[in-house]
Amino acid sequence: MSSDTAVADIGLIGLAVMGQNLVLNMNDHGFVVCAYNRTVSKVDHFLENEAKGTKIVGAHSIEELCRKLKRPRKIILLVKAGNPVDQFIEQLLPHLEQGDIIIDGGNSHFPDSIRRTKELEAKGLLFVGCGVSGGEEGARYGPSMMPGGSTAAWPHLKPIFQAIAAKADGEPCCDWVGETGAGHYVKMVHNGIEYGDMQLICEAYQLLRDALGLSNDEIADVFEEWNGGELNSFLIEITRDIMRYKDADGAPLVEKIRDTAGQKGTGKWTAISSLDLGVPVTLIGEAVFSRCLSALKDERTRASHVLTGPRGEQFQGDKKAFIHSIGKALYASKIISYAQGFMLMREAARNENWHLNYGGIALMWKGGCIIRSAFLGDIKAAYLKNPELESLLFDEFFQSALASAQQHWRVVVSQAALLGIPTPAFSTALAFYDGYRTERLPANLLQAQRDYFGAHTYELLSKPGEFIHTNWTGRGGNVSSTSYNA
Amino acid sequence: MSSDTAVADIGLIGLAVMGQNLVLNMNDHGFVVCAYNRTVSKVDHFLENEAKGTKIVGAHSIEELCRKLKRPRKIILLVKAGNPVDQFIEQLLPHLEQGDIIIDGGNSHFPDSIRRTKELEAKGLLFVGCGVSGGEEGARYGPSMMPGGSTAAWPHLKPIFQAIAAKADGEPCCDWVGETGAGHYVKMVHNGIEYGDMQLICEAYQLLRDALGLSNDEIADVFEEWNGGELNSFLIEITRDIMRYKDADGAPLVEKIRDTAGQKGTGKWTAISSLDLGVPVTLIGEAVFSRCLSALKDERTRASHVLTGPRGEQFQGDKKAFIHSIGKALYASKIISYAQGFMLMREAARNENWHLNYGGIALMWKGGCIIRSAFLGDIKAAYLKNPELESLLFDEFFQSALASAQQHWRVVVSQAALLGIPTPAFSTALAFYDGYRTERLPANLLQAQRDYFGAHTYELLSKPGEFIHTNWTGRGGNVSSTSYNA
Repeated sequence: MSSDTAVADIGLIGLAVMGQNLVLNMNDHGFVVCAYNRTVSKVDHFLENEAKGTKIVGAHSIEELCRKLKRPRKIILLVKAGNPVDQFIEQLLPHLEQGDIIIDGGNSHFPDSIRRTKELEAKGLLFVGCGVSGGEEGARYGPSMMPGGSTAAWPHLKPIFQAIAAKADGEPCCDWVGETGAGHYVKMVHNGIEYGDMQLICEAYQLLRDALGLSNDEIADVFEEWNGGELNSFLIEITRDIMRYKDADGAPLVEKIRDTAGQKGTGKWTAISSLDLGVPVTLIGEAVFSRCLSALKDERTRASHVLTGPRGEQFQGDKKAFIHSIGKALYASKIISYAQGFMLMREAARNENWHLNYGGIALMWKGGCIIRSAFLGDIKAAYLKNPELESLLFDEFFQSALASAQQHWRVVVSQAALLGIPTPAFSTALAFYDGYRTERLPANLLQAQRDYFGAHTYELLSKPGEFIHTNWTGRGGNVSSTSYNA
Repeated sequence: MSSDTAVADIGLIGLAVMGQNLVLNMNDHGFVVCAYNRTVSKVDHFLENEAKGTKIVGAHSIEELCRKLKRPRKIILLVKAGNPVDQFIEQLLPHLEQGDIIIDGGNSHFPDSIRRTKELEAKGLLFVGCGVSGGEEGARYGPSMMPGGSTAAWPHLKPIFQAIAAKADGEPCCDWVGETGAGHYVKMVHNGIEYGDMQLICEAYQLLRDALGLSNDEIADVFEEWNGGELNSFLIEITRDIMRYKDADGAPLVEKIRDTAGQKGTGKWTAISSLDLGVPVTLIGEAVFSRCLSALKDERTRASHVLTGPRGEQFQGDKKAFIHSIGKALYASKIISYAQGFMLMREAARNENWHLNYGGIALMWKGGCIIRSAFLGDIKAAYLKNPELESLLFDEFFQSALASAQQHWRVVVSQAALLGIPTPAFSTALAFYDGYRTERLPANLLQAQRDYFGAHTYELLSKPGEFIHTNWTGRGGNVSSTSYNA
């Protein structure tokens, strides 16, 4: 069916800002892109404005879009996750042939990508769920791309995707992630980590503002300095910019913004997946819950009038030293967050039988995306040195980083508790670190309690694998509970 | 079809320890119970042993069970949650008539109870999902029971359930909870709170043991003292007993138990529901994750050899004062946990259109169940005083309890951070308290960041409801992102 009308290398559906920018990016790299949008007037508007003078072509129907694509057809969907993706796939099906490739570049939930890969492969088509990160700018000039799904699709996509992706250390921030839903899973964890990074920066900002009384320009200077060192990253950099940004009246704009954040997205999915897989990804969990708490603005405002505690008290020691300690607390907490995120991916891979390349994932995140940072280079190095690394906390670089940061971290967490400033992410990261390095946690008591009230049995340290029930009270039976869990 | 063979007031399927005890309990209160078990030899064994000399009758088939029950039939399932419940319902259906009642007394997930209520009501039957708590002892001598589902079933069950339930303040710890899955939802939250209470006790125990170097008998004395005051509760009491319990060699048995706890049950469901509903139930979340971390025993043991930090350092100040502070930290954290749990139920009720009686729930939990405590009387009082209470933290009793506990709490959290002892639940509770009473959280920065990199827009404090995008960099477009969330 290929004909002289099949002019385009790739098609894209969905001309919101991310879609438009991705089309322009592919055009910049010499690919002919055919663009389609449900509201077709948007296609014409795009062709007459942003796409003017480019090789980009438009389509006014799904049929026209498919007609204009070279075989195997490659069609990127950049539409709202959920039903819209299934609806467009449904509409595309009659116009596709064996071996054609549908790519979902939206923020789909990984179980949907697992399902879609199977459904489309059963029809002889190929499916790729591709996480794309980097926001507007990334999509336009080089995003981080995390494709997974039908492995046979990758050779066809690789030249395009690696051309348009961001580059880090001279390598593209895009490589094949793994089977079925692996691409969207890794993107989900990326977003969860992004939630965590943002929460950590917020806690540092609140300490600088409220515990030290720094002005926004002074806070900007702190972030500027941090950005020159081990914390160097996109989010630290934009925080500096945001702190400096003045409203028309000369006052810092950020202080006028309502302190309520939404969630319900990929951060929540990451936390739920952690719970499902039994991996203690505590920092992302706290970051998601912090957004939930921020959303209760009116309730908080009322509570602020009736709940007592330190309020407006400032840190009394050496300011400069405390600023340094806050930076170290941020850095150490960030190491814990990434260690937890990689623990989660390891467990998901085990569970789904994916073959993930952890160093490759660090590289994909090193450029283009929201969490890009110098730090990810250290993670990449750790996994290059030992691809079977059990946890980032077993890597020497991170061990010594934590060793040198931890006293600062402890001081910040303890001071925040005394000053009444919430630092849920700093605190949970430290609790995780201390729990992870504790050979004997108090869960022995918990097991004794469960056996006491529910006859759930326990193991002895000396006899692992053997389950024992003790009649702690002398009353009641010796029946152990197996079918019922109270 | 009722005949002279229909002798039993109620039937029960599933003769594991909980089922047996519940049958004996109903018998004690004058009800004739017909007992059935899939492995029917268990029925005979039960009748010849535990049930010998009682009015309990047995059935060797589902058909026989149904034949022996008075109309409307009332059949309690005490079987493993999940498929077994559906399978028994399927087997019961041919033998039931309009208005008969199936009660699921297992730990079913609330969405299943919502579904089953609808399915059985569509067939003219009634369904009740009833949470039962109290372990072996509770089931035998008075459990806490939380029934919800088909409201029409309640008048038939009330005399039996309220007779066998625990009593607190002279009132039965059982009342109608609400529609569809409300009973199992409230039981789920109960279990989540139980996870939290157990974690808090574990953290106190670890501090007493590791930061203060107390012996198990000394720790038992501390729990004994706590049990005489505001912390008075079943779990504190059994912890005292466990601390005193000696193995055959005279050493405390609890110290020989392997410190790994399972999860994957109702605690996890509570945390997931919190995430789904956007309610910051941080303490239960940390309690679940603490169990996950405890389960990584081998990884922790390896980590303990390579990760640095304070180890075996003891608290240097006044021991007695610190013990008192730990008790206050436990109490304050517990208030936060219950406040979060009730926030969650409030949101779930809003979401599912349930009509929950919060004071009634506190009463149901006050006796019989694992979390029974004096404290629940204060919660009941708070909701009796104001049934529309926005949060427990708006009740004067709890406000002043927190006011007097908080300095101790801050000292414990800050000392634990410095001593390297993990207190994730104490810490997250304090962070929640401080966040809840903070009018201006740092989420304004988070919103600015999201708008910076993703054009997600933000609200101004001065113009709530109006969403604004700022071109923070001066580069890029002014298109705001609506259909795509990076």
